Amino acid sequence: MAVAELDASPWTRPRERGRERAIKRDAVLRAAAQLFNEFGYHDTSLAMVAARLQVTKPTLYYYIRNKEEILFECVRLGLELLRSAIADAAASGGSAVDKLEAAMHEYALIVTRDFGMCLIRVGEDPLAPPARKKLRRLKAELDHEFRALIEQGVAEGSLAPCDPKLAAFTIAGALSWIGRWYDPSGPLGSEAVARESIAVLMSGLSPRRGRAGAGAR
Amino acid sequence: MAVAELDASPWTRPRERGRERAIKRDAVLRAAAQLFNEFGYHDTSLAMVAARLQVTKPTLYYYIRNKEEILFECVRLGLELLRSAIADAAASGGSAVDKLEAAMHEYALIVTRDFGMCLIRVGEDPLAPPARKKLRRLKAELDHEFRALIEQGVAEGSLAPCDPKLAAFTIAGALSWIGRWYDPSGPLGSEAVARESIAVLMSGLSPRRGRAGAGAR
Repeated sequence: MAVAELDASPWTRPRERGRERAIKRDAVLRAAAQLFNEFGYHDTSLAMVAARLQVTKPTLYYYIRNKEEILFECVRLGLELLRSAIADAAASGGSAVDKLEAAMHEYALIVTRDFGMCLIRVGEDPLAPPARKKLRRLKAELDHEFRALIEQGVAEGSLAPCDPKLAAFTIAGALSWIGRWYDPSGPLGSEAVARESIAVLMSGLSPRRGRAGAGAR
Repeated sequence: MAVAELDASPWTRPRERGRERAIKRDAVLRAAAQLFNEFGYHDTSLAMVAARLQVTKPTLYYYIRNKEEILFECVRLGLELLRSAIADAAASGGSAVDKLEAAMHEYALIVTRDFGMCLIRVGEDPLAPPARKKLRRLKAELDHEFRALIEQGVAEGSLAPCDPKLAAFTIAGALSWIGRWYDPSGPLGSEAVARESIAVLMSGLSPRRGRAGAGAR
């Protein structure tokens, strides 16, 4: 009876409250990322974020300090998603080329979604130098992990010899660009875009000879 | 004697004046592009542009109306350089794959230079909707010309079968990205970067079999 009474309290219990706050903060960040991606960082106001969530602007300040903090968190989350996708791929079994393809696939999908797209479309440029510096360090780590996968592939012979640094930039550029032009409400599915872009990067534009027909990939 | 006296006039002759104005306007745009590329659009002021050119801010207004007009012109010039590089390549002799490689090579070099880099690093996003719309139309034309080269290559068999639209985006992404990370004062030459990126895009990351050794590109 006492327990039932406690459950029936109209106030949220402390542990629940922490979880609820995290969910709501994520909703604030996600709504802001969508608006940044659509209208650009400078043309998005906190009033627009509040309107999209159907709350008042003061409510937002319970979860975030200001627009700069929102952008920092959106870009950080985008980078964190990419970093963990590459780490997961690197930790999976298989050859280096399998790991690289898995990492590329996740990378392409992430930049079509809210935080990954915000990382590409807005990025750290509008932020103050200390915030920019932190995010650039995370980016450099990401480049490094991508490059390490390519170096492994070249060493084991599952990738063609190349300059791993420039190859990593070429891949990152081709995949990141998807976040610039991709329209989630458009006719192309993100899976198909990821597959085709990766096919071009793995097989190259030149026809491969010595395989079944010119159409072989 | 009369002619010598005219030549000795301390005022510039009208025809010369038009040319001089164009040269000075270009210098204003170029200095601004360099500052935008280094500090970002929002952190660059007209006072900084004037200081770099060692002129007063009012002098700048003889050549441009405001910062928005400068960015519009920088991005437009970047797009114009790319468009004419692709058109030149398309008009040159040779197979479609030769034309495509020539266009890619020029594209990669252009994005390492002032206006091309400004197109990639800043782009049209900070501008008002009508200006943004004009520049996006130019971009769409560019995409279309790139795609046409790829379609020709696939049709004549000098390129592997692919989705020309997605292949064009993949190439444009990989090459545009160079403008994001390339440091003209760094150790890598732009020619070497262009060559290596194009090699990855043409040959792919997977080893090509049936040619001399694993190292063959």
